[in-house]
Formats: sequence, structure tokens, C-alpha cells
Amino acid sequence: MNFKLSLPTEIIFGEGTTNEVAKYTKKFSDNILLVIGKKSAKETGLFDKVTKLLNYENIKYEVLEGIKANPTVDLVRIGIEIIRQKNIDFILAVGGGSVIDTAKAIACGVFYEGDVWDFFVRKAVIKKALPIGVVLTLAAAGSEMNGNAVVSNTETKQKLAISSHLLYPKFSILDPINTLTVPLEHTLYGVVDILSHVFEQYFDKTPQEESILQDRFAESIIKTVIEIAPKLKDDLSNVSYRATIMWCSTMALNGIIGCGKIHDWSSHQIEHAISAVYDNISHGLGLAIVFPAWMRYVIDEIPYKFYNFAKNIWGIKKESIVETALEGIGFLEKFYKDLGIPTKLSEVGITHKDFDIIASKAVEFGAIGSVKKLNKEDVLKILTLCS
Amino acid sequence: MNFKLSLPTEIIFGEGTTNEVAKYTKKFSDNILLVIGKKSAKETGLFDKVTKLLNYENIKYEVLEGIKANPTVDLVRIGIEIIRQKNIDFILAVGGGSVIDTAKAIACGVFYEGDVWDFFVRKAVIKKALPIGVVLTLAAAGSEMNGNAVVSNTETKQKLAISSHLLYPKFSILDPINTLTVPLEHTLYGVVDILSHVFEQYFDKTPQEESILQDRFAESIIKTVIEIAPKLKDDLSNVSYRATIMWCSTMALNGIIGCGKIHDWSSHQIEHAISAVYDNISHGLGLAIVFPAWMRYVIDEIPYKFYNFAKNIWGIKKESIVETALEGIGFLEKFYKDLGIPTKLSEVGITHKDFDIIASKAVEFGAIGSVKKLNKEDVLKILTLCS
Repeated sequence: MNFKLSLPTEIIFGEGTTNEVAKYTKKFSDNILLVIGKKSAKETGLFDKVTKLLNYENIKYEVLEGIKANPTVDLVRIGIEIIRQKNIDFILAVGGGSVIDTAKAIACGVFYEGDVWDFFVRKAVIKKALPIGVVLTLAAAGSEMNGNAVVSNTETKQKLAISSHLLYPKFSILDPINTLTVPLEHTLYGVVDILSHVFEQYFDKTPQEESILQDRFAESIIKTVIEIAPKLKDDLSNVSYRATIMWCSTMALNGIIGCGKIHDWSSHQIEHAISAVYDNISHGLGLAIVFPAWMRYVIDEIPYKFYNFAKNIWGIKKESIVETALEGIGFLEKFYKDLGIPTKLSEVGITHKDFDIIASKAVEFGAIGSVKKLNKEDVLKILTLCS
Repeated sequence: MNFKLSLPTEIIFGEGTTNEVAKYTKKFSDNILLVIGKKSAKETGLFDKVTKLLNYENIKYEVLEGIKANPTVDLVRIGIEIIRQKNIDFILAVGGGSVIDTAKAIACGVFYEGDVWDFFVRKAVIKKALPIGVVLTLAAAGSEMNGNAVVSNTETKQKLAISSHLLYPKFSILDPINTLTVPLEHTLYGVVDILSHVFEQYFDKTPQEESILQDRFAESIIKTVIEIAPKLKDDLSNVSYRATIMWCSTMALNGIIGCGKIHDWSSHQIEHAISAVYDNISHGLGLAIVFPAWMRYVIDEIPYKFYNFAKNIWGIKKESIVETALEGIGFLEKFYKDLGIPTKLSEVGITHKDFDIIASKAVEFGAIGSVKKLNKEDVLKILTLCS
């Protein structure tokens, strides 16, 4: 299949690279918006470190803080306002996917006269954006090397995505030291997020002979995450494990494993609907629950891809293709369970009474998915499968 | 290990993408230098096609033609002269690695007052370069998505490399249709070149736990090439096989599998010395001969990497690590032989009498290699091993 690929983000990877943040920022501006999360950047000392470096290079900054998981559009609007008032022309995101995605939404919203949410509901198209830079603190979203952003709207209870080549960060500093303080739970949800990104590109309807290399790369990421995650769970302050998972997160969603492929993002969309309704559900947690159910629901559409997954990742070889494929999905579920991650909606307190609203949200712009077109009925069945 | 990675080249991949060449060129200039090879672009009709498209977009072009394998600096100098006379500000390379590398050397030479060869012998540093674009016709060099160029000097009998971030093509059109006419011999030498690029990054002294993902990516490319090359040999006009090998060639040398790794390019340097002396020896052919000998010579330095190669690529598992590793190298040699590629110097008419001059050239700037530092004595032993 034909494709276009361009990865304009400059990656600065490794221990201690945070020290380069002001040098890279200075290339773009000396009057910036610094976007950070709720607490961790201040608690870990990273905020102090970054601002000291900025001060040292005489870079002025305004701070937008308080971005939380499932970031909301109201803080995006505040960020846009600050930038307009202070004539700021660069955004530095110090955080994980939520912080980066907020920065991206601000970056394009600044140049748009209407409300930034218009981009998310497809009422407007992104035509221009401020440059942004990143200091990554969480290995999960992959937002550090792509043009995607996901933001929630608490009023409309929507969680939607935008995507534009203009939103690629100009640079991303990937210093594994900054992930050392991520607590166990969020480290593991990050792992699920990474794997899910790979699955969304790996399990699709592209004929397998058309994406041999991409699929081997995808399997490389899956194998590496599966090998390292349990070790990291037992040794959260191991820089080498942190670095490996961090690099997996970036490579999972920068286009390399998905180029020339069809993709299927329906599990992601179902999860977005879940965490739009239950905003205490982490994205990764929701994905760990939804994905195995989605896999079982669509297995007949692409049995050979699930067979490859079972064989190449888990070394399974049963009598039939479907038997092998099903066992592979079971292994994935067991992998999550062994890490201590819930894999059923009931384990996190989500019950049948909310299935209808979740399913309606998931398909609010029409049927989702490419492996199998999913309408509301289908989503309800998937929710029941993981209930 | 820390690293920086940025891949600014925009890839336009797939059947029929050649039609976009003028559109992409127009973004940069309407007064360009068109660099092509000796005959094939004209014989296959690609030259006509590209120039028609350029004419249609009113893009003026001067043609520099006659670039051959192991491109020489004299044509680079002529290209620089044309550009200066005609106020040209963009170079379009339609060809394989030789044509692209010539374009890169011209691109930086234009802005340098002295002779362009100064860059190659490290007398000068590249500070500025014209933008270049690529229509790739040969899957081999990987030059379409990196900042490297290798050029020969027939007077000094040197074959040397330059590398600069400024030399990344702005865009590269990878249309597998343009490789359908590559004859068997050069198709296979391309395959060797691709594998060799992977080996140079895979077989190095980086601790294996520091490059788990990169090495799995490398193995993905090796496996894919080994799977597809014999099929392609029997079906040279299969677009899908051509596309897969083409994408492997780009991914082998764009930085993805080598980031954070030490690399060892000594086999490449020995081969460059060989084809500087025997300019009828294709780069790929020389590499097929030198590489297995180099592997055997340095095996004790990194036995576990050769063991991984044997186990993960060929499925070999003998009693000892070294036994397994050695059999893996043997399998590689057999793979080349089965494709009909010579693996000994004697098969291509190179005899002991020239070993001294080759070895001297290989180490003319000092000892080479990182897995094991090779001086002239070592290179002579490697040449003897593949004699």
C-alpha cells in the first residue's frame, strides 16, 4: 500500500538530556508557555530544574499547570488566552501524553478565531500551529513523536482526537531519569497503552504480504515490552528498563510500524467513550479491559493475524489456526493479570447500567473500526464480553 | 546509550508515486539540476517521464548525466560548475545510491570555495548545502533517507564518505515500479548492501541490554530480506517483492536500527578500499566477500551477538555459543552462494598481489573498526580469510 512518512521531530534521547532543554527551546523562542501536570513535575524537582535552565538562558515563561489524565478542553482554552495576551510563540510541554496533547491543542487553537473544540468535532480544520517542544515524563502515549492529541470535554462528556502534521513537536527530550518516579500503577498503564498502540496497527486488514517489515517491527516492540515490563515492575528505579520502555512507547506510535497499513482504532474509541463517562478510569486501564474482548469479537475477520501474534510472540502452536489465535489472546490477558492489571469492567466498578451511554458515545460519529465495522450493537456485545 | 535522531526526509512510497515528482520539486524551486546515471534512466523511459512532468510544471532543468557505480568526484565538480553558472538552487537525483551521493556532494560543494574533495579528506567541514530531492531506482544504498555520501577519486584511488545532517534529502519518492528493470546481478548486490548495512549496526560492542529494540528491528530487516530475496530472484518483476526490499533498504540505514549503538563500519571501509583499486567491483559484491571473513575474524570479541544472529535468524542451536555463532556465519555465506553471489576474492580475480595496496588504503586514516581495532596486519589477515 502507498504511504507518506515524515518524522520531523528531533529526538534527544538518554540519561541527562533534560539539561539540553533550554538550548533547544532557545532555537525557537525566548517567550514561551510552559505546560505541566497536576503535581508531579513540581514534586520531583523537574519543574525547578527546567525553569532554572530557562532562566539561565533568559527565556521568559508563563506557566499553565494542573493538566490531569484525560486532559480537558477548558485548560486548553486558558492556555490559548495566556498566549494571546503575552505574545507567546512557543509551547514547552513538560509531562506525559496529557500535557503534550494539551500543548498541541493550544498550539493550533491559538490561530483559530472560533472555539478550539471545533477541531475535535470536525467543524474546523487545522491550518497553522505554534511550534512545541517536549520533555517527556511518562512512557505511554507516544505523543512525543506524532501529530495526534486527545482531549476531553466535560460538558459534552466527549473524548476526541485531532491529528495534523503541524502538531509534531519540533523536539522531544526523552530522558529516562524523568520517568523513574512514575508509580507502579501508571507505569503499568503506560505499558498497556504502548501495546495497544501496536495492536491497533498490527491487527488490521492489510494483506500480510504487504506489510511484512512493519509487522515484524510491531512484533519487535511487543516482544520487548513483554520481556521488560515484568522486570520493570520489580525494579521501578532501573534506568535501563525505563529507557527501553520509553523508546518502545515512542516507536509504537510515530508512524514506522503503521505506514502503508489500514489500522483499526475502534478499541481506542470504545475506551475513550468509557473514560469520557468514568473520568477516573486511566486510558491504559480501559484499554487492558477492552482490547482482549475486541480481539475475540473480531477474530474471524483476520484469524491469521491473531495466529501470527500467538505464534511469533508467545510461541503457541495448536492444532488449528483459530485455536492458536484464541490462546494467544488468552496469554495476553494472563500477561496483564500477572502484572496486576484489571481486565474486566466489573473489577473497576463499571456495570451494565452504563453500557448504553458508553456504546452510544463510541459510535456518535457513526460506525467505528476497519477490521469489522462496529455499530452500537457490536460495541454493546464487546462491553458484555469484558463485563 | 544516549542518542539524537531526526528523520527530516519526507518519504513518498508506493506504486505510481513518481507522478508526484514535479509537485514536490516545485515546493523548492523551478530551476534545478537533474542528476542521472549512465543509461538506465533514459532506457527505461523514467528520464522522459520525469522531464515531461517537470516541463508540465514549468520547472527548468539542466542535466548532469553519466554517474556510474562508485561515483567519481570529477562529475561532482562538473555539477557544481553548472549550478554556479545557472543559478540553480535545487538538485533532483533520479537514480540509485551513486546518483544520490553525487547530488549530495554537489549540494555541499556549491557553497565551498575550495575543492569539494576537501570534505572527504577532512580538510573542510560541511556548513551549508542545497536542498535535494530523490526518485529512487535501486534498493541498496539507503542514501534516500540519510545524510551520507560515498564518492571515489580516481586520481588518488580513494573512496571516501561524508556525512552531514544538511545532506538529508528533502523528499524521496520510493516507487517500486522504478526498480522493476534492475537486472538480477544488481538486484542481488543491492540485497547484500542492505544486509551489510544492518550488520554494521547490529554486530557492535553496545551491551545487548542497551539496544534490545534496535536489535530486534535489525533482525526484522534481516529476516525479511532473507525471506524475500530468493523469491525476488525468481520473479524480478514482482512489484510486491520489489516494494518490500525497497522499504528494507531505506529502513536499514536511516538511523532507526542504529540509534544509541556504536556501529562498526570496518567491513565497509575494507570494501571501499577494494573497489577503489578494482573499480569494476560492485560495492555489494565486495561486501558479500569481505563480511563473512570479518565476522570470523572478530567473533571472539562479541560471540553472543553472533550467537543471537545464528539463533534468531537461522534458528541454529548447537552445543556451544561459538559453535552456534560460527554456523550462523556459514549459513549467511551459503545464502549468498545460493543466490549466485561470489564470496571469495579469487572468484572475482583479485589476488594476493594487491592485498598490500588494499590494506594500506583501508587504514590510510589510521586503524579502523570498533568491535576490534584493525590495523594493516589485521586487514591483510581478513583479506587472506576471503581469498
